[in-house]
Amino acid sequence: MFKLIHKDKTSKARCGKLATAHGEVNTPVFMPVGTQGTVKTLTCAELHDCHAEIILGNAYHLYLRPGLDVIKKAGGLHKFMGWDGPILTDSGGYQVFSLAKLRKLTEDGAEFSSHIDGAKHFLTPEKVIEIQQALGSDIMMTFDECVHYPAARDYVEQSLELTTNWAKRSKEYFMNHKTIKPSNDKTIGRQLLFGIVQGSTYLDLRKKAVSDLLKIGFDGYAIGGVSVGEPNNLIHEIAGYTAALLPDDKAKYLMGVGTPPDVLQAIEEGMDMFDCVVPTRNGRNGQAFTISGDLQLRNAEYKEDISSIDENCGCYTCKTHTRAYIRHLFNTEELLGLRLVSLHNIYFYAKLIRLSRQAILEDRFTAFKEDFVMRYNSKKKGSQK
Amino acid sequence: MFKLIHKDKTSKARCGKLATAHGEVNTPVFMPVGTQGTVKTLTCAELHDCHAEIILGNAYHLYLRPGLDVIKKAGGLHKFMGWDGPILTDSGGYQVFSLAKLRKLTEDGAEFSSHIDGAKHFLTPEKVIEIQQALGSDIMMTFDECVHYPAARDYVEQSLELTTNWAKRSKEYFMNHKTIKPSNDKTIGRQLLFGIVQGSTYLDLRKKAVSDLLKIGFDGYAIGGVSVGEPNNLIHEIAGYTAALLPDDKAKYLMGVGTPPDVLQAIEEGMDMFDCVVPTRNGRNGQAFTISGDLQLRNAEYKEDISSIDENCGCYTCKTHTRAYIRHLFNTEELLGLRLVSLHNIYFYAKLIRLSRQAILEDRFTAFKEDFVMRYNSKKKGSQK
Repeated sequence: MFKLIHKDKTSKARCGKLATAHGEVNTPVFMPVGTQGTVKTLTCAELHDCHAEIILGNAYHLYLRPGLDVIKKAGGLHKFMGWDGPILTDSGGYQVFSLAKLRKLTEDGAEFSSHIDGAKHFLTPEKVIEIQQALGSDIMMTFDECVHYPAARDYVEQSLELTTNWAKRSKEYFMNHKTIKPSNDKTIGRQLLFGIVQGSTYLDLRKKAVSDLLKIGFDGYAIGGVSVGEPNNLIHEIAGYTAALLPDDKAKYLMGVGTPPDVLQAIEEGMDMFDCVVPTRNGRNGQAFTISGDLQLRNAEYKEDISSIDENCGCYTCKTHTRAYIRHLFNTEELLGLRLVSLHNIYFYAKLIRLSRQAILEDRFTAFKEDFVMRYNSKKKGSQK
Repeated sequence: MFKLIHKDKTSKARCGKLATAHGEVNTPVFMPVGTQGTVKTLTCAELHDCHAEIILGNAYHLYLRPGLDVIKKAGGLHKFMGWDGPILTDSGGYQVFSLAKLRKLTEDGAEFSSHIDGAKHFLTPEKVIEIQQALGSDIMMTFDECVHYPAARDYVEQSLELTTNWAKRSKEYFMNHKTIKPSNDKTIGRQLLFGIVQGSTYLDLRKKAVSDLLKIGFDGYAIGGVSVGEPNNLIHEIAGYTAALLPDDKAKYLMGVGTPPDVLQAIEEGMDMFDCVVPTRNGRNGQAFTISGDLQLRNAEYKEDISSIDENCGCYTCKTHTRAYIRHLFNTEELLGLRLVSLHNIYFYAKLIRLSRQAILEDRFTAFKEDFVMRYNSKKKGSQK
């Protein structure tokens, strides 16, 4: 289902195509986060207008609210939320070990209290596949223990054994409960299942995790347990090291990353897929991304600035509104402001990825990335003078 | 600038056209409220899609934030907010006497403390015209004292004298500071100025107010000081009584009204223009208007309801999303829910008005209104059983 199209001659960056049940995804790709069945503040029509190719949902959140009965009744997550493109669902491992109150972790699964109403739930690897099958996402993730940073080596070793065992059970359950639907050359008639490489900051454990997961065999591989509090350079050390161990004929997904320079660096390291709340969460806080760095639109400096966020941007926000207007919306707590900056940021990330693909196809990714990072950081340096 | 097109043979309802500097408005018309330069949660593109013909801004709010300098720099309120249709600006009288802390009311004007930062401001009738000229709205309202309900007769008499005197000064200032721009047969090359009839619930004072305002002469007349806490039947007694005193060749604007049945009743009483926060404020609270009554989409009864808010509605929300999805959005506090219901409600009001116009042109407005009100209230009666 993953087809490698081109490898950049100046770096490990690569272009590919990933066939899913809801169409083909060009990689590298950035996936806007729609945790609860909505990319916050935006409609699906706007996501299409922003050239989003695939979005993320979250099994943990959707399992708790609205619950599987509601989503089944709607005919799956795509119909429930009105998005006809591919969806990747995160397994909820991260949420169970962060948002919820974990009550008991056994070989069998995780018992936890919901962060919403405290109700007890028990999730197993099998149950998490079953949930994602009910959601009908295009790419399912295995249930894993997401270890936070820093973590002691013996804890990570033990946790990794559990995660690998869960990955094996996920695959078995998946193989015994696959449903096949009609497909064409750009779609695939079943859900995909990705394994997640854990191992915290211990590279030898990451290596062991990769080796074990490859033996089980997945449709794609994610690097999890990054962007969980560790220094930025460690993310890239782990990503670069692990990406090189993963096979070239499978999609490589770096979970939870990141800022525009982080995404470009991870592309350079050979990663294909990314998701992060940064464009929407920071957007709702007034931070707009541009090629010349980010702007905090709440700032008084934009009070009378009648230029758009980025004069060269083709998004609705930039074609329609000024920084002064958006600053006014944030200043008066008008929700339209949150929408406009979220939309711009999603458009910006999608465009950055399109430009990256073009640079890879033309064997100039390293130069493209270096030029971008220099321009992106120039404003920051300027303002520190 | 106001052209009466047709009078319904079964009621006092009427159809007309009002020429403004930004195009012609068909009446009756409902004006969505964009207090701070944004109809809450919606873009101007969405307002167009909802067939909104004219929107409201508020001089008091926009004068305080972002301030006139910012709006002048943007080239006026239309350009600042990205709306190219007509805008009516309320004078701020209502806000000075409700939202702000009034410090001193004199013959000359009103001194008050801003509700935002407590800063002292002094507004006079002349200053309020000057503000609205800087905003560049198509229809300006005179500065008035908006008396709340209930009010003692002697207070209302005294207040009315002030309001009438302010109206006279507003007109004088306006005549001495008019700017004329090119126009065509559907536009008018200057801002319009409407007078506001006050007088609380005392019909003889309403009559005196009309008589005094007509002597001064305005482009249109508004009935103010209604929907300020009085019983619903009093609104219509005042509106019906006052509408009949106003000349047929001028637009008649009932301020701050109302629910769908209220708007239809006021159309029946001969009123042409309406504004109200109900479609957006109630929309943000999950209340959706339909021809069969309103729905509270937060309710558990919609949890698995995969029909749209109104199967016969042509708005984006109804064409795209189910009640179950919108209920989920409200249940999980997702901002998209606020957008979707606000959009539906604005579309609903605009459609109700279009159907009203059609009924008037076909001399069947009374029957149309009665049928609507019966169907609209049927659900409510049903649920009371």
